[in-house]
Amino acid sequence: MNNTFQEIGNVLLNSENILLYPHLNMDGDAMGSAVALCRVLRSAGKNCYVLIEDKVPDNLAFMDHGYCTMDQNIMGSPDVSVCVDCGDEGRFPARVDKFRTSKLTVCIDHHRTTENFCDYNCVDPGSAATGQLIFKLIKEMNLPIDKETGEALFAAITTDTGNFQYSNTTEETHRIVAELYESGIEANKVSVAIYENNSIQRLMVNGKILETLETILDGKCALCYVTQAMLEETGAMMEETEGIVQQLRALAGVEVAVFLKEKDENTTKVSMRSKSYADVAEIAASFGGGGHIRAAGATINHSVTESLEIIKQKLIESLGA
Amino acid sequence: MNNTFQEIGNVLLNSENILLYPHLNMDGDAMGSAVALCRVLRSAGKNCYVLIEDKVPDNLAFMDHGYCTMDQNIMGSPDVSVCVDCGDEGRFPARVDKFRTSKLTVCIDHHRTTENFCDYNCVDPGSAATGQLIFKLIKEMNLPIDKETGEALFAAITTDTGNFQYSNTTEETHRIVAELYESGIEANKVSVAIYENNSIQRLMVNGKILETLETILDGKCALCYVTQAMLEETGAMMEETEGIVQQLRALAGVEVAVFLKEKDENTTKVSMRSKSYADVAEIAASFGGGGHIRAAGATINHSVTESLEIIKQKLIESLGA
Repeated sequence: MNNTFQEIGNVLLNSENILLYPHLNMDGDAMGSAVALCRVLRSAGKNCYVLIEDKVPDNLAFMDHGYCTMDQNIMGSPDVSVCVDCGDEGRFPARVDKFRTSKLTVCIDHHRTTENFCDYNCVDPGSAATGQLIFKLIKEMNLPIDKETGEALFAAITTDTGNFQYSNTTEETHRIVAELYESGIEANKVSVAIYENNSIQRLMVNGKILETLETILDGKCALCYVTQAMLEETGAMMEETEGIVQQLRALAGVEVAVFLKEKDENTTKVSMRSKSYADVAEIAASFGGGGHIRAAGATINHSVTESLEIIKQKLIESLGA
Repeated sequence: MNNTFQEIGNVLLNSENILLYPHLNMDGDAMGSAVALCRVLRSAGKNCYVLIEDKVPDNLAFMDHGYCTMDQNIMGSPDVSVCVDCGDEGRFPARVDKFRTSKLTVCIDHHRTTENFCDYNCVDPGSAATGQLIFKLIKEMNLPIDKETGEALFAAITTDTGNFQYSNTTEETHRIVAELYESGIEANKVSVAIYENNSIQRLMVNGKILETLETILDGKCALCYVTQAMLEETGAMMEETEGIVQQLRALAGVEVAVFLKEKDENTTKVSMRSKSYADVAEIAASFGGGGHIRAAGATINHSVTESLEIIKQKLIESLGA
């Protein structure tokens, strides 16, 4: 069972040394939530840091005004450790030992799969972003939300709601953001920082990937792939191909979008998205993978071109009727 | 001077036959605003239509449940004609004569350049979308906002705020949208309808265009082009290359983005965007073109590859220092 914001607020306000743990591969919600909480706790006189284990992504670095550190000795055993936007210790593997030295642990998260594994837990899968939970916690603690805190919370919420377009967005999401505006946030600057920071390598590799685009079943399925050679040629990293599968799904008439990544000559990772009715989790499961009905993935032990044919065959069997 | 929502509401509520005029090349704000107003006026017993002169775009058609018509004889001289999201008669050229037969005219718009040219005017450039003005007008008339009306208003607002990322977005924008949620809108369905409707031809031609991407001045300028051959090969239309120049500007480190369109073998259209300091209107002017400091264009009477070199030379001269 969840603890109330009041209970968690009291734990934090009665502590001196606090470490916050966003998940690996920080996104806007993890970073924005952790930074906002760190800033308000410092304003309340706490010794507080965001403990990380990998680099702050370039497009989120604008939020870090001395909050993030990789130095696990920045303080001794903290009074409280708070994991933010992550639901199990596997999401902060290199920091688990430090986490466990803490007198108390707290989890604030909105992932559906999160179990209450800390001393105090606030897990709300109905919340579009962990940033919304942090907002409510800050209000409960009666700490001030200034422009900088507001912008971190806006970054968190806009990221995890897909700019207020995803179905997790609610009336409350908009009411919270309206309140953030009262703190003087410049939301447009946050958006430019987060989104207008693409690499040219990314755009170049996207061009090459789109050259492989094909459709089957009268345009119902769209598929494309990336090879190691394309990455080498453009200097892009595999992570920079994220987002392609959503672009494919956004095509008119496309129900299933498939993106294949060549890991090596005998290993291909497959990402699938569906728009409104197809169950891609089932298709992924047939290759030993898994996921959700609308977003799933698997690994196929074949070359990327062989895997492409295998997936096409499977799609024709599943959706051809 | 503007009329109040109350004055305009009274004009509408005291009329029987009402025609609404969104602008040519309807976007989400024009269409959503007109449809929402039409629906609530019908709910108040009015004979009301949205009079259009060009086809409803495919991705907005989901809003049209019998509101839009091209038939100018759908009613005789209307009691009131309302132009919605357009600021002068040039924005509805084929409907001007009908507009002028009206006993009274009303303008509801948010464009900065709009002058009060109707009998009653509500022009508010501080409003992110005309949809926000329609929302306030509906509240003033005390007419019900149901799910369908709410979704049309959401479409209007999300389009013109760039999904709540543009700097025109305000606290009020989010408060209005929060209220729309109360009417049961499914915002995600609206977004999918508006945005997840790209053509495969568009994505394919984008891939080819990105293959021409190059940068100069240490990545400060990014340039790419489209040829007639690329359009033929992919089946895309020139309009489907819109948005490329914004993609280029969104690259980290890029100050000026340039996109060249081959019109014919001796004519090239050039679009330019700048991010934070470069004056592209000045560069465009040197080729006989024009525009704004951050968005400008020109036509060069050379082939696309020659024009590319000419523009690069000019950029090096202007920004190389």
